[in-house]
Amino acid sequence: MICDSTQIRVRYSETDQMGVVYHSNYYSWFDIGRTDWMREAGMSYRDMERRGILLPLLESHCVYLHSAKYDDQLTVHTRITKLRGIRFTVEYEVIRDADGLLLARGSTVHVFTDADLKPVNVKKKHPEIYEIFRKNVE
Amino acid sequence: MICDSTQIRVRYSETDQMGVVYHSNYYSWFDIGRTDWMREAGMSYRDMERRGILLPLLESHCVYLHSAKYDDQLTVHTRITKLRGIRFTVEYEVIRDADGLLLARGSTVHVFTDADLKPVNVKKKHPEIYEIFRKNVE
Amino acid sequence: MICDSTQIRVRYSETDQMGVVYHSNYYSWFDIGRTDWMREAGMSYRDMERRGILLPLLESHCVYLHSAKYDDQLTVHTRITKLRGIRFTVEYEVIRDADGLLLARGSTVHVFTDADLKPVNVKKKHPEIYEIFRKNVE
Amino acid sequence: MICDSTQIRVRYSETDQMGVVYHSNYYSWFDIGRTDWMREAGMSYRDMERRGILLPLLESHCVYLHSAKYDDQLTVHTRITKLRGIRFTVEYEVIRDADGLLLARGSTVHVFTDADLKPVNVKKKHPEIYEIFRKNVE
Repeated sequence: MICDSTQIRVRYSETDQMGVVYHSNYYSWFDIGRTDWMREAGMSYRDMERRGILLPLLESHCVYLHSAKYDDQLTVHTRITKLRGIRFTVEYEVIRDADGLLLARGSTVHVFTDADLKPVNVKKKHPEIYEIFRKNVE
Repeated sequence: MICDSTQIRVRYSETDQMGVVYHSNYYSWFDIGRTDWMREAGMSYRDMERRGILLPLLESHCVYLHSAKYDDQLTVHTRITKLRGIRFTVEYEVIRDADGLLLARGSTVHVFTDADLKPVNVKKKHPEIYEIFRKNVE
Repeated sequence: MICDSTQIRVRYSETDQMGVVYHSNYYSWFDIGRTDWMREAGMSYRDMERRGILLPLLESHCVYLHSAKYDDQLTVHTRITKLRGIRFTVEYEVIRDADGLLLARGSTVHVFTDADLKPVNVKKKHPEIYEIFRKNVE
Repeated sequence: MICDSTQIRVRYSETDQMGVVYHSNYYSWFDIGRTDWMREAGMSYRDMERRGILLPLLESHCVYLHSAKYDDQLTVHTRITKLRGIRFTVEYEVIRDADGLLLARGSTVHVFTDADLKPVNVKKKHPEIYEIFRKNVE
């Protein structure tokens, strides 16, 4: 069971005029966490896309507890929590390294599709990929 | 009761290598919808911030039904659906103009704060602003 | 000769913690100006891409004179200033509508390519597209 | 003389529908390079801003030689090349780690300002900061 950790340093471009990170940027951090989780699990998402398997989002959600700020060093924890047929859920936590404070937690729901974004029966068509997801679900 | 409509044309910079809009961009569209809703309701968010009232997010959520694509003309519908003390919820729908298809729907939860992002009792301190929200809640 | 004008309202997501627009966002406004210019000239970039002609950038440049701020209403003026073989240059001005102040001016250099980003002799292969560019160069 | 190196892995959110990195994202990489250069030189930009010294851009420029792609591991090399009064120029190179290929090179011109974005005579007001820049100019 893989719970991957990704280090991120907050970019200036990610702040807004409130002086904190603009809320939608947490979703691109989740994406980085997902990319790292998959690499860690033994299948890079880059390679998956080359083989014609895409993972578009059905849903995204984030709860903001404390603001991330420019130049903060953060850790994103990523894990798979559900796998039902061709859909799966990934959950994330964003931690501030300086003091271990939980800044945000969120989730994304994905579907396996082909390159034309048509749902694909991954269990049947790509059992080796399905298996990697299955054995890593919490 | 205001249900504001905002026109958006999808930017090239908003697409990703799947050939559709990257999912986090829907949240900046929601933000535009909110800005327009507030202007329509009689208080620009720009002016609110100048008076020291900020509306940071506590939560964001989006369900993706169909992909938006480069150069698509879209309409974002925005409305306030809850107001509980110093928190309120805004809901959004993203429609493709060409055929009226609902592409996504989502919500954001906000809190009234001062310029230091400390929660503020808006009902007491800025009753005229609270009133605008109150009378527009569905 | 087309000098297109595009209206833009500054998004909250485009600001940074200096309280003004983050500098790289001007380039996505230039992109919107370019998209509108092409539509105005009679060939939408969306359709061009579908026909397999892409316009990746070789170079970009921007001079920042005054800061754009959240909710500012701006106009981007776009025009083609050079066409040499398969390369062309587009120039942009960003004006603040409230007082006509020139906020920034910039340019991008593009090359005609096929869908694999290989340079393509557009004059020979797509003379009708080349002609639209040629007759609109200043 | 500091020539800082920053490691970057390309994010999915940075790609566009051409299948490569959207051009304006190179500028946020330059920004990361600058942030790292300053930390390396002994003054974090975060601390500088807290002391009321800002470094807004007067100009930005980039030449794109080869496309960066999703999940590429890149190195940004950053160095200061000019310091004239209260303006300075930073130059950048973006290298693909896999094969050492130069993908892009660019520059940004900055001015020292106070928190209200008014130019400030840094040589006189903050000689210790000026000195760090002066001794690191190539």
